[in-house]
Amino acid sequence: MTKKAKPDINHLVSMETLDIDTINYLMDEADNFLKKTLSKEHILDTLKGKVVAVLFYESSTRSRNSFVIAAKRLSAITINPDMNLSAILKGESLLDTIHTFEAMGVDLFAIRHPDNNAAQFVASELNGPASIVNAGDGDNQHPTQALLDLMTIRQYKSQFNDLTVAIVGDISHSRVARSLIAGLKIMGTTQIHLIAPPDLAPEDAESLGVKVFNNFEEGLSSADVVVALRIQKERMQEAQLPDFEKYHNEFGLTAERLALAKSDAIVMHPGPMNRGVEIDSNVADGPQSVILQQVQNGIAMRMAVMETLLI
Amino acid sequence: MTKKAKPDINHLVSMETLDIDTINYLMDEADNFLKKTLSKEHILDTLKGKVVAVLFYESSTRSRNSFVIAAKRLSAITINPDMNLSAILKGESLLDTIHTFEAMGVDLFAIRHPDNNAAQFVASELNGPASIVNAGDGDNQHPTQALLDLMTIRQYKSQFNDLTVAIVGDISHSRVARSLIAGLKIMGTTQIHLIAPPDLAPEDAESLGVKVFNNFEEGLSSADVVVALRIQKERMQEAQLPDFEKYHNEFGLTAERLALAKSDAIVMHPGPMNRGVEIDSNVADGPQSVILQQVQNGIAMRMAVMETLLI
Amino acid sequence: MTKKAKPDINHLVSMETLDIDTINYLMDEADNFLKKTLSKEHILDTLKGKVVAVLFYESSTRSRNSFVIAAKRLSAITINPDMNLSAILKGESLLDTIHTFEAMGVDLFAIRHPDNNAAQFVASELNGPASIVNAGDGDNQHPTQALLDLMTIRQYKSQFNDLTVAIVGDISHSRVARSLIAGLKIMGTTQIHLIAPPDLAPEDAESLGVKVFNNFEEGLSSADVVVALRIQKERMQEAQLPDFEKYHNEFGLTAERLALAKSDAIVMHPGPMNRGVEIDSNVADGPQSVILQQVQNGIAMRMAVMETLLI
Repeated sequence: MTKKAKPDINHLVSMETLDIDTINYLMDEADNFLKKTLSKEHILDTLKGKVVAVLFYESSTRSRNSFVIAAKRLSAITINPDMNLSAILKGESLLDTIHTFEAMGVDLFAIRHPDNNAAQFVASELNGPASIVNAGDGDNQHPTQALLDLMTIRQYKSQFNDLTVAIVGDISHSRVARSLIAGLKIMGTTQIHLIAPPDLAPEDAESLGVKVFNNFEEGLSSADVVVALRIQKERMQEAQLPDFEKYHNEFGLTAERLALAKSDAIVMHPGPMNRGVEIDSNVADGPQSVILQQVQNGIAMRMAVMETLLI
Repeated sequence: MTKKAKPDINHLVSMETLDIDTINYLMDEADNFLKKTLSKEHILDTLKGKVVAVLFYESSTRSRNSFVIAAKRLSAITINPDMNLSAILKGESLLDTIHTFEAMGVDLFAIRHPDNNAAQFVASELNGPASIVNAGDGDNQHPTQALLDLMTIRQYKSQFNDLTVAIVGDISHSRVARSLIAGLKIMGTTQIHLIAPPDLAPEDAESLGVKVFNNFEEGLSSADVVVALRIQKERMQEAQLPDFEKYHNEFGLTAERLALAKSDAIVMHPGPMNRGVEIDSNVADGPQSVILQQVQNGIAMRMAVMETLLI
Repeated sequence: MTKKAKPDINHLVSMETLDIDTINYLMDEADNFLKKTLSKEHILDTLKGKVVAVLFYESSTRSRNSFVIAAKRLSAITINPDMNLSAILKGESLLDTIHTFEAMGVDLFAIRHPDNNAAQFVASELNGPASIVNAGDGDNQHPTQALLDLMTIRQYKSQFNDLTVAIVGDISHSRVARSLIAGLKIMGTTQIHLIAPPDLAPEDAESLGVKVFNNFEEGLSSADVVVALRIQKERMQEAQLPDFEKYHNEFGLTAERLALAKSDAIVMHPGPMNRGVEIDSNVADGPQSVILQQVQNGIAMRMAVMETLLI
């Protein structure tokens, strides 16, 4: 097998800009990193001398530290300032902050920001050759999450085009769902079921080319992959916030409901989980769960993305 | 002298689980690291490729950065997220956080948590081979502090079994005292005097095998080692909080009181100090104080602990 | 050209203690680092094994991360604790914190503190050979900013002694202005114009040997260098705080006003900028602006300072 050509991309801001070859390349690279990690070659010198800035304007533990660990495993100089506190106090704009860090020699920015299209905006306004990775913008995109999700699906299912993927939960606020749907469609998956209460279903489902089910049981039958989404309390407007017990009764992923899917269906969740709300513990920790595998893949995929953008 | 065998331990959660050989081994290793540090071999490659997560669920400057510096001196990849803010906002459980970091490849966790037995609980629930170091759990244990205290005592006193050690202050809330008492007893020290107001003396003194003195002067005579404890304002219930001036009058370590101990007694304090409350500045900065030596030893001991657990 | 001798300095607390040879040496070293950075030798092993503590008792993004990146580019072990939260909660004094970190083996402290002379005080009270860099103390000094400003001026103007430098804005609260004025005078610049509202002009202008203009147009004519200062909202007492629109009308650096200076005048600002208050965007982003060059120089200058103090 010949090694695939490295894709010529400078930024990763949206799944919608990627093609199937690029996604396959990134999944292959990430699989390689995973093997190296498992064989204890934890540190590589690939990004020695490069500077990676992890700039999170929203609080986060897992994604933020996933980027930090991935960058450090490639020997990048890494800064990870607390943007909630420091920048905002003095009132500097996002763009001035980015241009300042560019001038300090930052080579790659992993940016999470509450505004839709923040990363895309920044990528279009850079002064130099730095790379932008969108680590989540509003309810728009979260492409590294989608890529690690695709990588996880590929590890368990042989191909994408005959899969049924069911995505369950608060889809209207979910950049994870939006990016995953785009990624799945690029990979050739045609059966994408969204299961959500009417209030939390996306308004543009038709244009996304997916089927919406308000009924859990109907949407889940024949699923090979079940993705439970986090109830995004912090993103939901007061009026929309459902009663958690009611939500669990109608849309929580229970063992009973999971039994409606194929017997070898895998269960995914981007984390952090609200156990007992959108997912039950016996599902999250059960034999069909690949949730921690997603986390492990996240390190490898972010290593692959950063290396591909920078080298 | 033959090199002692490396003890076979995976976690360090409580002094009570250690034996004398393990403690001696760790003190020898830490003394070696101290020599290397003093001779400017600041960086060692021992933990290159390992990932250390310093997870402090309570605010701390000294212990937290002591772990960070120790890990970095051994060339570990180190993450040190702000757990007060990030994890709690999204409501993830301690265990889900740990399992997530495990999946990211963290090899060792140094955990400080307000709940007693948090580290022990985590150690019992790990999915893989990661190591847990208890960096303080509630008012229960703080074993690396006890080990650095023992190391400091050994540097000034030839042996443990004929020592009188007086521990002064807010003992009932002190994980430092609890761990140090356990460590001293393992090392053979039988004369352990606790000097505390009735409200702040431990209820289980008898089972701890120590003598409690409510009278400062009586408890301090014949002491070789005097350990002043921090008034743990943040741990004391409102009703118990003494008036600081009254506390200083009755239980502050003054030069006059220190003169009651042996003339070559050393003075220790785990820091940070409330000067003028539990200890006077002329004692803290005086010729008998080894308080900064404790801090220096802390780096070396944490290097020894992390290396021993991981290699 | 023979290489100049390394100056024999242990601390950098104030521009007023430097001589012209030391400043020239540091600018030369920083220029060298800049060339190395531009030629992608991002990492040097100069400070391998050294420990740098960046201790900011005021919030900051740019200076704080500039020190961190500079230290990491020299391969120092770097700690950068959140001093606003951690130390203050437990009430430890600045000096105890410094002595503690000294005992942990910190070789260089970059300290920002709201109190005037904090860095100088710490430097005078150290127990060992550690170095102190004042990263800003109250409204007193910010010497690395002055050095990077001088470096920037030297890159655009051939010499210092026939320059007219106009400093505009909230001078009375500005450690940036105070350090820059001291540096310019050491370098031989005699024409230093301060342009400020009466309330924000320094009271000791005469002793500083500078000319104060309350009239923008008059002070700016013949300027080779125009330094716009940030309105330090956080430093201004309520009563003094001007109306921002009024301030902009009278003292904002607009394109019209800049046209009064020499046609090849450069525009500087220490950042972060209040666009539309003390400076207009078409000036900040215009062809005469060297503001991002200042940021780039900041990394190189801090590398030069840390290397000079530690090696």
